[in-house]
Amino acid sequence: MIRAGIVGGTGYTGVELLRILASHSEVDVAVVTSRSDEGLRVDALYPSLRGSIDALFSQPDVETLATCDVVFFATPNGTAMQMAEQLLARGVKVIDLSADFRIKNVKEWEKWYGMRHASPGLIAEAVYGLPEVNRVAIKTARLVACPGCYPTAVQLGFLPLVEQGLIDEETLIADVKSGVSGAGRKAELATLMSETGESFKAYAVGGHRHLPEIRQGLEIAAGKSVGLTFVPHLTPMIRGIHATLYSQLKAGPHDIQSLYEKRYSEEYFVDVLPSGAHPDTRNVRGSNKCQIAVHQPQGGQTIVILSVIDNLVKGAAGQAIQNMNLMFGLREEHGLKIVALYP
Amino acid sequence: MIRAGIVGGTGYTGVELLRILASHSEVDVAVVTSRSDEGLRVDALYPSLRGSIDALFSQPDVETLATCDVVFFATPNGTAMQMAEQLLARGVKVIDLSADFRIKNVKEWEKWYGMRHASPGLIAEAVYGLPEVNRVAIKTARLVACPGCYPTAVQLGFLPLVEQGLIDEETLIADVKSGVSGAGRKAELATLMSETGESFKAYAVGGHRHLPEIRQGLEIAAGKSVGLTFVPHLTPMIRGIHATLYSQLKAGPHDIQSLYEKRYSEEYFVDVLPSGAHPDTRNVRGSNKCQIAVHQPQGGQTIVILSVIDNLVKGAAGQAIQNMNLMFGLREEHGLKIVALYP
Amino acid sequence: MIRAGIVGGTGYTGVELLRILASHSEVDVAVVTSRSDEGLRVDALYPSLRGSIDALFSQPDVETLATCDVVFFATPNGTAMQMAEQLLARGVKVIDLSADFRIKNVKEWEKWYGMRHASPGLIAEAVYGLPEVNRVAIKTARLVACPGCYPTAVQLGFLPLVEQGLIDEETLIADVKSGVSGAGRKAELATLMSETGESFKAYAVGGHRHLPEIRQGLEIAAGKSVGLTFVPHLTPMIRGIHATLYSQLKAGPHDIQSLYEKRYSEEYFVDVLPSGAHPDTRNVRGSNKCQIAVHQPQGGQTIVILSVIDNLVKGAAGQAIQNMNLMFGLREEHGLKIVALYP
Amino acid sequence: MIRAGIVGGTGYTGVELLRILASHSEVDVAVVTSRSDEGLRVDALYPSLRGSIDALFSQPDVETLATCDVVFFATPNGTAMQMAEQLLARGVKVIDLSADFRIKNVKEWEKWYGMRHASPGLIAEAVYGLPEVNRVAIKTARLVACPGCYPTAVQLGFLPLVEQGLIDEETLIADVKSGVSGAGRKAELATLMSETGESFKAYAVGGHRHLPEIRQGLEIAAGKSVGLTFVPHLTPMIRGIHATLYSQLKAGPHDIQSLYEKRYSEEYFVDVLPSGAHPDTRNVRGSNKCQIAVHQPQGGQTIVILSVIDNLVKGAAGQAIQNMNLMFGLREEHGLKIVALYP
Repeated sequence: MIRAGIVGGTGYTGVELLRILASHSEVDVAVVTSRSDEGLRVDALYPSLRGSIDALFSQPDVETLATCDVVFFATPNGTAMQMAEQLLARGVKVIDLSADFRIKNVKEWEKWYGMRHASPGLIAEAVYGLPEVNRVAIKTARLVACPGCYPTAVQLGFLPLVEQGLIDEETLIADVKSGVSGAGRKAELATLMSETGESFKAYAVGGHRHLPEIRQGLEIAAGKSVGLTFVPHLTPMIRGIHATLYSQLKAGPHDIQSLYEKRYSEEYFVDVLPSGAHPDTRNVRGSNKCQIAVHQPQGGQTIVILSVIDNLVKGAAGQAIQNMNLMFGLREEHGLKIVALYP
Repeated sequence: MIRAGIVGGTGYTGVELLRILASHSEVDVAVVTSRSDEGLRVDALYPSLRGSIDALFSQPDVETLATCDVVFFATPNGTAMQMAEQLLARGVKVIDLSADFRIKNVKEWEKWYGMRHASPGLIAEAVYGLPEVNRVAIKTARLVACPGCYPTAVQLGFLPLVEQGLIDEETLIADVKSGVSGAGRKAELATLMSETGESFKAYAVGGHRHLPEIRQGLEIAAGKSVGLTFVPHLTPMIRGIHATLYSQLKAGPHDIQSLYEKRYSEEYFVDVLPSGAHPDTRNVRGSNKCQIAVHQPQGGQTIVILSVIDNLVKGAAGQAIQNMNLMFGLREEHGLKIVALYP
Repeated sequence: MIRAGIVGGTGYTGVELLRILASHSEVDVAVVTSRSDEGLRVDALYPSLRGSIDALFSQPDVETLATCDVVFFATPNGTAMQMAEQLLARGVKVIDLSADFRIKNVKEWEKWYGMRHASPGLIAEAVYGLPEVNRVAIKTARLVACPGCYPTAVQLGFLPLVEQGLIDEETLIADVKSGVSGAGRKAELATLMSETGESFKAYAVGGHRHLPEIRQGLEIAAGKSVGLTFVPHLTPMIRGIHATLYSQLKAGPHDIQSLYEKRYSEEYFVDVLPSGAHPDTRNVRGSNKCQIAVHQPQGGQTIVILSVIDNLVKGAAGQAIQNMNLMFGLREEHGLKIVALYP
Repeated sequence: MIRAGIVGGTGYTGVELLRILASHSEVDVAVVTSRSDEGLRVDALYPSLRGSIDALFSQPDVETLATCDVVFFATPNGTAMQMAEQLLARGVKVIDLSADFRIKNVKEWEKWYGMRHASPGLIAEAVYGLPEVNRVAIKTARLVACPGCYPTAVQLGFLPLVEQGLIDEETLIADVKSGVSGAGRKAELATLMSETGESFKAYAVGGHRHLPEIRQGLEIAAGKSVGLTFVPHLTPMIRGIHATLYSQLKAGPHDIQSLYEKRYSEEYFVDVLPSGAHPDTRNVRGSNKCQIAVHQPQGGQTIVILSVIDNLVKGAAGQAIQNMNLMFGLREEHGLKIVALYP
């Protein structure tokens, strides 16, 4: 049994880790921390876990966490970088769901996240946890930086085209729509139901923190710099991300549908839909799948890729566990064969 | 492996059976029927099942269904009663999710359902599939009539009080709120999102088909006739039922909280919350649990019971599989330890 | 033109006052206060008001407010009672949308609201602003205490029965469902969309502040004490209250439908639906109407009344303006003939 | 008083016409037709109109409609073209909310709408009812073809750039999100709340009927052909359209914000938000406004325009009445100064 600790167990990604790990036959959730809820039963805060998780919240203490084989950080940005080094030093594997180790360029990270990085020495070692790209490196990693939710949906959508160099990399457009759980479990006016229900809006059009992360991933795949316009939107639902991706195809006859099917034929969690399909976020709700459809409207040169995930699963907790499975030599889909909740 | 067939696989209870059975280690879904979608892959209609269910819809044919060990009817009322006899004759166990065999009084059934019963001879044999009441009989049943969604939430909520005779049985009130999936997957104006979203209403206050079913169950528990006012409401969400139950306590000191905890202490799927709690339908969404809380406002004689379920799981497909587990000698919770999807 | 001031213009009842008053031909909104947003244009905070309201937020200052003919308090409980006396002394009429002057018994008020009343001397003078009951007194009032949202829906629903003494006053039950805007515009976890969307729950079953207010109104109408169980619920929508009211009819032949039609025949804002109807909250959304339907299920002695309002209009801002119209000698429906927004 | 008739009064655009006209001081709604509901009171079908509209549904009969000054067609495509000629011949002005007269190229229309045009001779005369473009022509028109909902949001968003020739017209992208009321009031599986709630998807990526309409409008503005990729999406809300528009700016210093402010400075219903703003569909819900914001992310050459409307108001009924006001010499905003319903 893998002994797992979760730092920051009171947010939506924390409780989602608990939901999935509760049914994972190889994991024992030994430690769940929360500064504010120490001593409280986890299932007192989250009655959905009654009968499934039998733990109390404890203080995030290195000694206690060091008894674990793996520690997940489901914390706000800036926490994992404070504790990762100590845990790694004691032989604990670290899977960070926050943004602390995602960006390789420290300056860039510090600019977008508005703080000094506390552990720049670890950044180079950290493996970006997108298994569909970095599977081999993840297997032997000590420290994995899980991708953000938007970056997961956008990169999986663009990768086949970018890897093959079939499109103009200078004019990529990612118009992405997210459910409100992506904003986390924080008392804020902007995500009240009265403010977000029955309404739709874009936000952060001037620049969102996931932009440099997406660009970094696409540039590695392309082997050159890319130009990306990324516009996130808030949609009146709880879970789900829908990325609508636009790019200009270079000349030539190309069979884009086959390209996608081939690229992902061995990927359990990436599902290329039949030609002409329109993925619906509900079809991946609660599951770790990414469903993708390929379109070329009116046979023109604009390729439209539709890519959907559940932001809390493939965009966060599910992907983290997918990484854990790889790091511990389990089958990648172990404990993750969850069928989406429809309707 | 249990070889299972599903008649009526295109409705919400049908697809919910498929979602749960896809992860049930002892069941092989061998036959899924649909008159209108014969030959179509099940996962073409329901992309949430891609990778999990590898079957085609077929015609509902007795010969084919007779190759199964058990057949679930997830059909509109009036279908199961046409086919049950033939299947039972061939040794197939039948679990009916529709209303065909729920009411013991045929006249009463025919009045509320507006049709002649095609198989009145089977009604007496049919076991009402509420395991928390009829567990022993279910284990040896050939034909199980699964309770309706409202009746499940209301009966589990009222039973401890009614069984002990602690309340005035003449003035029971069940004010119950349901998500719209309870109306089924039918093209109807009334359940369009534009008609039901952002709005709340009662319906069928004059009399709803689940009234006689609930009354029958409570009368058996009480050992006498009961008077019940049942008011169903449509609430703008997809899954979930919340029953708010009112009754007048008879004189005496009574510890109602303990009564409930004791009554359900051995029930895996009925979870009595701590005193003062307010169950939230989201905490059972996708799971087979019923969460119940007991209140006695201002210490008066009116007892208020709050009882929540997922109408498609404990109110339909989950309960059907709970019955199947009992009928085939499996642990009751086999394949049903699903943690609710929160948020 | 009536010169109006609004104290607390940043909450939902404040902005709703602004929405309605923007189209009221006899009112000039002269002052809108907000401690935190002084100097900001009102329509910068509420872009829905661009082009309709040309005012800046100012500090809540008695001198400035005293230039108004009427001041609305759309503030949290405890604010109006601090300022009302000074404004009344300067000849300003005061309409309080908070709970400060609703309860005649100071001790009771202090118990439920957890604070000392700052202006107990004004409580007797304050007129409870339910025009369908207190129209004459409102016309000459200096200080009007607008009813709460739940109390409006419940009292209008029960009044005809209670006034005529047709029901057992000891066993009244009000099962009421509210949209989340009733919780106000406050940064709180409990009303995040991720917490309240797609879910339903009861709350405060042990005792809600609106209970003594409703009981007070019904006792005045009955001329005796009443026993009331009041259970509020949160429903996943933004606007709307649906009250389902249960009572036991006394012996005798009674024509309840006619009773209701007659009681409200002269009331512009109370609309008794035809026999057998089920009011839907969407049909009063944005309007100042209360729609009511009367049911007697299976001809039994339990009467079920369904009563719906928009909690922000007839349950708050609209009713406040209805009171203002009366206080200033205008037609009661002036500026309030708003058709509900359907769908 | 203008005597108005509405053909097809039972759909969402029909009832929205009724909502707005009920408060329009210069209009008398004399005739409301519905084939299926003849003889029924309009407010029996739409209780939101009780007290506001005192009419019965009648058969769509030319003789009766000819007694009107103006007839609105709120019908499915293919109806207005059957009756327009007869009404015009009798001196009745016709405002068509359907697509029958929007496309000037008959062949193109017949291809996209899949039927033969019944009145091709009228197409040339019909004025495309976007007042912000065709105000002068609308004033004297006999027949106005109201724009579709998507085309209104997209054209108002792109027009200033296209009219000035500042962008590459070959690579326009319109990623547009609509609430479900845009699909109309029809009993269809796809728009059930269980199918569309809590989910997001694109549809008709291969080609949507509004594509040729948008292209036609932009080409007139550009004076040349344009290349447009249009991807519509369904978002889980009832009302509202959010268009996110992408285009590539040509070289030169350009002050796009000023360009938009100037272009729409005299337009009552087009509101250019301050630089950096993100319009929210809720801020125009129920109102006839279009709110627009201009962005140039990271100062690059990709211009992002955000444009929001209420699909049933500025996208349908409100715009139709705006046209009517112009046709009858009223102030354009008469009866249309409706403040949006927030929250």
